[in-house]
Amino acid sequence: MRMGASQQMIDSREEALRRDREDPLAAFRAEFLIPEEEIVYMDGNSLGRPPRAVLDSLEQVVRAGWSGRLIRAWTEGWMDVALALGDRIGALLGAGGGQVAVADSTTVCFYKAAAAALDARPGRTEILTDPGNFPTDRYVLESLARQRGLQLRWLEPQDATSGPSAREVAAALSERTALVTFTHVDYRTAAILDMAAITGAAHAAGALTIWDLSHSVGAVAVELDAAGADLAVGCTYKYLCGGPGSPAFIYVRGELQASLRQPIWGWLGRRDPFAMEPGYEPVEGIRAFLSGTPPILALHALSAGVELVERAGIARIRAKGIALTEYAIALADSWLAEHGITVASPREAALRGAHVALAREDAQSLCQRLATRGVLADYRAPDVVRLGLSPLSTSFAEVWDALSALRGLAG
Amino acid sequence: MRMGASQQMIDSREEALRRDREDPLAAFRAEFLIPEEEIVYMDGNSLGRPPRAVLDSLEQVVRAGWSGRLIRAWTEGWMDVALALGDRIGALLGAGGGQVAVADSTTVCFYKAAAAALDARPGRTEILTDPGNFPTDRYVLESLARQRGLQLRWLEPQDATSGPSAREVAAALSERTALVTFTHVDYRTAAILDMAAITGAAHAAGALTIWDLSHSVGAVAVELDAAGADLAVGCTYKYLCGGPGSPAFIYVRGELQASLRQPIWGWLGRRDPFAMEPGYEPVEGIRAFLSGTPPILALHALSAGVELVERAGIARIRAKGIALTEYAIALADSWLAEHGITVASPREAALRGAHVALAREDAQSLCQRLATRGVLADYRAPDVVRLGLSPLSTSFAEVWDALSALRGLAG
Repeated sequence: MRMGASQQMIDSREEALRRDREDPLAAFRAEFLIPEEEIVYMDGNSLGRPPRAVLDSLEQVVRAGWSGRLIRAWTEGWMDVALALGDRIGALLGAGGGQVAVADSTTVCFYKAAAAALDARPGRTEILTDPGNFPTDRYVLESLARQRGLQLRWLEPQDATSGPSAREVAAALSERTALVTFTHVDYRTAAILDMAAITGAAHAAGALTIWDLSHSVGAVAVELDAAGADLAVGCTYKYLCGGPGSPAFIYVRGELQASLRQPIWGWLGRRDPFAMEPGYEPVEGIRAFLSGTPPILALHALSAGVELVERAGIARIRAKGIALTEYAIALADSWLAEHGITVASPREAALRGAHVALAREDAQSLCQRLATRGVLADYRAPDVVRLGLSPLSTSFAEVWDALSALRGLAG
Repeated sequence: MRMGASQQMIDSREEALRRDREDPLAAFRAEFLIPEEEIVYMDGNSLGRPPRAVLDSLEQVVRAGWSGRLIRAWTEGWMDVALALGDRIGALLGAGGGQVAVADSTTVCFYKAAAAALDARPGRTEILTDPGNFPTDRYVLESLARQRGLQLRWLEPQDATSGPSAREVAAALSERTALVTFTHVDYRTAAILDMAAITGAAHAAGALTIWDLSHSVGAVAVELDAAGADLAVGCTYKYLCGGPGSPAFIYVRGELQASLRQPIWGWLGRRDPFAMEPGYEPVEGIRAFLSGTPPILALHALSAGVELVERAGIARIRAKGIALTEYAIALADSWLAEHGITVASPREAALRGAHVALAREDAQSLCQRLATRGVLADYRAPDVVRLGLSPLSTSFAEVWDALSALRGLAG
C-alpha cells in the first residue's frame, strides 16, 4: 500500500515531536516528577503523575503547620482547607463558591450524595443508572437499594459507545424515579453524556441527579451550575494528580443544601463542632456534608495538582485532550484497524473525554505485553485497552510510542 | 506552710529534669520534629507531634512509589497497605492478624461499624451509650437511630469521673438492646472503662459492642481479642502521631466478619475489585470493610508514627503515661488544689489513660491564657483543662512547666 503525504506524516515520530514543539502546554510536563526510566504512561486517568510541587507542599504542611503550629493550625486555617480547595475544584467545574467540599473517598461521597437524594424523594421507589456505570457507584446504589427496599433500574443504552442519551433517560423515567445517576465521562469509552439534557429530563420527572465527574474533572469542560446539576462527586487522583487514594469531592447545589441531609452525621458537619454539645444540628452550607476530620496532609498534596490545572486552564487542557485523542485515533486507524483493533470511543471530539478505548478480544493480553515493553495502559473488561492521555503530562511522542508498541504486538 | 523534703522535691524543676534523665523512653523525644520555639505541648492527645521519619516516608512513597512505579504500585503492595498497617495497629491492641483495617475517618468507620452491628440485631430497638461519649460517636448514633426508628438510650453514670461501670451497663440492658458502645478511655476524664466486663454484660443480653479506642491506641494496654470485643474503631492522629486527619482504623472480630456487613459497598471491599463485574459480593475477611481507594500517602505518613510506638512498646509507653499523669496530679495537688482547681481524672492509675483533666469553672479562660504563655492545652466543656501527656514526646520538664504556668494563672 502506497502512502500519501498526510499518511506518511502521521506515521512519522518526527511528526509527534513537531506536535510536542507546538504544544502550548508542553512546558507542564516538566512540572511532574517523571523518572528517568523510559515509561510510556497511558494511565494518567487511573493515577495521575505526581506534580513536583507535591513534595514541597507536604514538607511545608508537616514542618510549618503540623510541627510548627501543632493544634493551633486547626483554627489558623486547617478547618477551611476542605472547603477552600472545594471552591477551587468547583471553579474548574463551573460551580460557584460554597458548593463543593473535599472529603472522604469517592465511594463515601457518592454514598452520602445518594442517601441524601433518596431521603429527599420519599415514596419514590426507583434509582436509574446504567450497567456500564463505574463499579463503585453501582455497588453503593445496590447497598442503598437493598437497605431501603428500592428498585435499581438499569438503562442499557442502544449505542454502547456513546452511552445513555437524554431521550433514552427520559423514556425510562416515571413518577417512581427518585434518583438518576451516571458517570459524566464513561470510564471505558470516554463518552461524554449530555449533563444538561439528562438533568433536565430528570427534573421534569421530579427526580434528583448525581453526576460522577471522576473522568471529567481537570480534563473536560463541565458547567455544573449552568446544567442545573443537583449533586456531583468525583475523584482527584486522575487528572487532578492528587496522589493514590487522594480525597474526593462532593458538589451540592447551593439552593438544595438546606433541604438535603447527608447520612453520616459527624462532628465536622455540626454547627460549632468544638462545643461538643448534645444533639446533632447540621451547620449551614456545604460544610454539613463533612463527617470526620479533614485529611490535612492529603489536602495539601492535592492542592499542588489543582494548582497545575488552574495555571493551564480548562480550555487549553480540553484542547490538548482533544488533540491527543484525535492523534491516537488517527494512529489507531492507520496502524491497528487492519489488525482488528477498533476504536471504541466516540469519534466526535465534543463527545469524547481525554482517553481512548481500543477494543479487541485479547485486550488483557495486549495490555500485559505492552507493559513488558514499557507502555502502561489499563485493561478494562471485557475487551478494552484504555489509553489515558492526561493533557498536562502526556506528550504526543508518548502517544506515538504507545500506538507504535501496540502496532508491534497487534499482528 | 513549711514544706517537707518530698514536697520540696516535687516542687523543684530539677526534680523534673531528674525524671527525664531516668526516663527509659527519653530518647524518643528526639524522634519528633519539635520546633525551636519553646512550646509546652499538652495536646498530644488531640494532635500528636510529627515523627521525623514522616518526611522521609512521604518522600519515599512519592518518589519511589507514585512517581517511579505509577499505577503498577497498586499490585506491588499498595492494595495491602491498609490491612498490613491494620495488623500492626491491631498488634498494639491485642488483636490477632486479619481483624483491623485502616480506612476513612473515625466518624465513617464508626458509622460502618454501628450500621453493621444494628443490621445484625434485627428486631432490637435500642442503642446504649453515655451522654459523655465523644460527640462524633453520639451524632453518628443519632443519625442511625433516626434512619432506622431506633431508640438511643443514654446511660448517665453515677460517678462522672470513672464513667459507666459494668454493673450500670448491665442494669440498662434488655432484650431490646442491639448495640452497646462507649469510648474506652474517656476523652475528658481519661477514665478507662472495663472493656471485658462491659462486653460480657452486653453479650449476656445478646447485644453487640463497639469500642472507640481513639484515646487508647498507642497509650494504654488494650486486649481486644481477650476482652471478647466485637467491633472497635479509633483515630490515629493522637498517640499514633499519624498527622492531622490521618485515616482511622476499624476492628471486626474474626468470627463475626462473615456475618457482619458494612453499609457502604464500594469497589475496594468487593471480591476481585478490578474485574469490575456486576453485583456486589463482599470479599472475605476484614477487607470487606473497605469502601473506596485507600489513602496511600496518608497511610505511609501514619506508618512512621506506628513504628515509633512499636519500637517503644506498649508496656513502656503505658508505664511512662502513668508516671507522667501521676506527676501532673501530684503537682496539681501541691500547687492548684488550694486555688480551687481539682483533679477530674481517676486517681487510680490503672483506671486512667494518658491525660489528666483539671477542672475549674474558668477552664476556657485558663486555656486561652496558658496559650499566651506558650502552653498548649485543650479546653473541654464545661470546665476542664485537659493535659494530654503523649508518652513518647512529652518530657517531665514539660509537665512541670505546664503546671507551673497554670499555677501562675490560678491565683
